[in-house]
Amino acid sequence: MSYPEDLRAQVERYLEALRFSEEAGTAKLEEAMRYSLLAGGKRVRPVLALATAAAIGVEPSSMLPFAAALELIHTYSLIHDDLPAMDDDDLRRGRPTCHVAFGEDVAILAGDGLYAEAFKHLLTDQPGESANVLRAAAELASATGVSGMVGGQYLDVAASAPAGAEGLRHLHALKTGRLIRASVECVLLLDGSQEPATIVYFNNFASELGVLFQIVDDILDVTGSQEALGKASGSDERLGKRTYVTEFGLDGARKLAKESHARASDALNSAAPHDPGQLHQITDFIAYRSH
Amino acid sequence: MSYPEDLRAQVERYLEALRFSEEAGTAKLEEAMRYSLLAGGKRVRPVLALATAAAIGVEPSSMLPFAAALELIHTYSLIHDDLPAMDDDDLRRGRPTCHVAFGEDVAILAGDGLYAEAFKHLLTDQPGESANVLRAAAELASATGVSGMVGGQYLDVAASAPAGAEGLRHLHALKTGRLIRASVECVLLLDGSQEPATIVYFNNFASELGVLFQIVDDILDVTGSQEALGKASGSDERLGKRTYVTEFGLDGARKLAKESHARASDALNSAAPHDPGQLHQITDFIAYRSH
Repeated sequence: MSYPEDLRAQVERYLEALRFSEEAGTAKLEEAMRYSLLAGGKRVRPVLALATAAAIGVEPSSMLPFAAALELIHTYSLIHDDLPAMDDDDLRRGRPTCHVAFGEDVAILAGDGLYAEAFKHLLTDQPGESANVLRAAAELASATGVSGMVGGQYLDVAASAPAGAEGLRHLHALKTGRLIRASVECVLLLDGSQEPATIVYFNNFASELGVLFQIVDDILDVTGSQEALGKASGSDERLGKRTYVTEFGLDGARKLAKESHARASDALNSAAPHDPGQLHQITDFIAYRSH
Repeated sequence: MSYPEDLRAQVERYLEALRFSEEAGTAKLEEAMRYSLLAGGKRVRPVLALATAAAIGVEPSSMLPFAAALELIHTYSLIHDDLPAMDDDDLRRGRPTCHVAFGEDVAILAGDGLYAEAFKHLLTDQPGESANVLRAAAELASATGVSGMVGGQYLDVAASAPAGAEGLRHLHALKTGRLIRASVECVLLLDGSQEPATIVYFNNFASELGVLFQIVDDILDVTGSQEALGKASGSDERLGKRTYVTEFGLDGARKLAKESHARASDALNSAAPHDPGQLHQITDFIAYRSH
C-alpha cells in the first residue's frame, strides 16, 4: 500500500533543519536530542497533520511548525518511556536508546528539552491567528499532560487502569490516542474556519485511528521481528503488560483491528473532507503495516 | 525584613486549589505532583510575578494562572534535578524527595506532568489578549528549554560550561536566571502596554536578581543548616560542583552578593515602576535570606 511519502519527506527535511542549541556548551545535549529525533520512522503524527491540512484545502507546509512539534513530543515520550526506571529498553528505531548512547542524565534532559523546544517552536513559528495558535497549543498541552500522554504512561507503569477491555482501551486512549487525535484536531483549530460538527467528525476519525494504531502495535509486538520493528519484540510480554493480544488473543486482536479499520474509514468518509486521499492512505498503512 | 506575605498567601491558596487528574487511575500521580508542589517555600517566582504586576499598576490576581505555571515548572525542575541519575538528593523542602516517596518512574512522570499542566493552565486560563498570552508562553518555553533551564542543568551535570567566573555566571544565567527573568518579563508581555525600553530596564533588574539569588544560594549551601535549608547542606561540595564559593571563597562570594544586591536595587529604580515597594522587598529578602 502507498503512504504519503512526499509529506514524510517534507517533515524529514524540516526536522533535519531544526537546531536547538545556541552554544558549544550544550552541543552534546542537542546531539542527544537529534540522535533520537532523526532516527527515521514513518513520522505518522506529523504526516497525519499535514494530510489533515490537505484534506481541508489548506497548504500542508503551513502546518510544518506544528507537525514538527508533534514529532519532538513523540520523541521525548519515547526517550522517557525507554529509561531504566520505566520500560528499560535498550533498542529503539533500530539503534541503542538515548540513555544507552548518552547516559541516563542526558537522556532525561534530552526528553525535557525536546518537550520545551516543541512548545517554543509551535508558539513562535506557527503561522495563523494568535487565538487559533493559542487554542491549538492548549489542546496539545492537554493531550500530553495528566489527562493525556503522561497520564496514560502512568496508568501503564503503575498498572492502575481499570480491568478488562474498557480499561485497556482507556489506557491507550490517553497514552497514544490523545496525541494522535491532537495531530488532526489541532490542524482544524489552527485553521479556525471549520464548523464544530466537522471537528467532531474528524475527532471521531482520529480517535478510532488511535485505537487501530494501538491494536496493530500490540499485534506486531508479538508477530514482528526485532529487525522489522527496530526495537525488541516481545517486550510487552517481558514487562507483563496487558495488551489487546493478552486480552483477546492474536486472532481476537486481528478481528478487532479489522473492525477498527472499517470504523476509522467510515468516520473519515463521514467527515467528508475536501481531499481525503492521503488520510485514507495513512489509515490503510496503519492497519496493514509490518513495523 | 518583610516579604510580600499577602502575595505568597494568594499564590498558596491558588496552588492548593489546582487539580490535575480527572480520574481514579491517575490519582496517585496527582498525589506525587501535589506532594512536591505543596511542600511550602517562599514561592519566589510567582510572588515576583504578582509583585511585577502591582509595580506596573495591574491587578496582581489577574496574573495568577501565569504565576502558578511558574511554580509548577520550578517544582518539575526540582523533581528531575533530584533524581538518582542527576543530583541524587534525598531531601527537599524538608521532606523526602519525590522519587524517594513515590518511586523513580512516578517522579519522572510527575515532573513531565507538572510541565505539561503548567502550559495547559497558562494557555487555557490566563486572561489577556491572545497575542500577548502567546508571546508570554513562547518566552516561558524558551526560558525553560535548551537556551534556558534545561540547557543550564545540562551544563551543570555535564560540567561543560566554560571555565572561570564568566562560565559559572553563564551556567546559572541559564539554569536559574532565565526562569527568574521570565517571572518578570512575561508579566510585561501579558500586560502588553509597556514601552520596549521599560521592558529592557525590568529585564536588567530581573537578570541581576537571578545572579543575586544564585550567589546567595551558593553561600547558604556552605553556611546553612539542613534544618533551615530543608535539603542537605554541603551538597555542592559533595557533587564537586563549581559555585561562587569555590570560585571566589566565602568572603569573596559575600562581597559579590553585596555588589549584586546594589546593582539589582539600582536597576529596579531605573525601571521606575509605578509601585516598586514589593519588588524591593523581594530583592532584599533574596539578599538577606537564611534559607
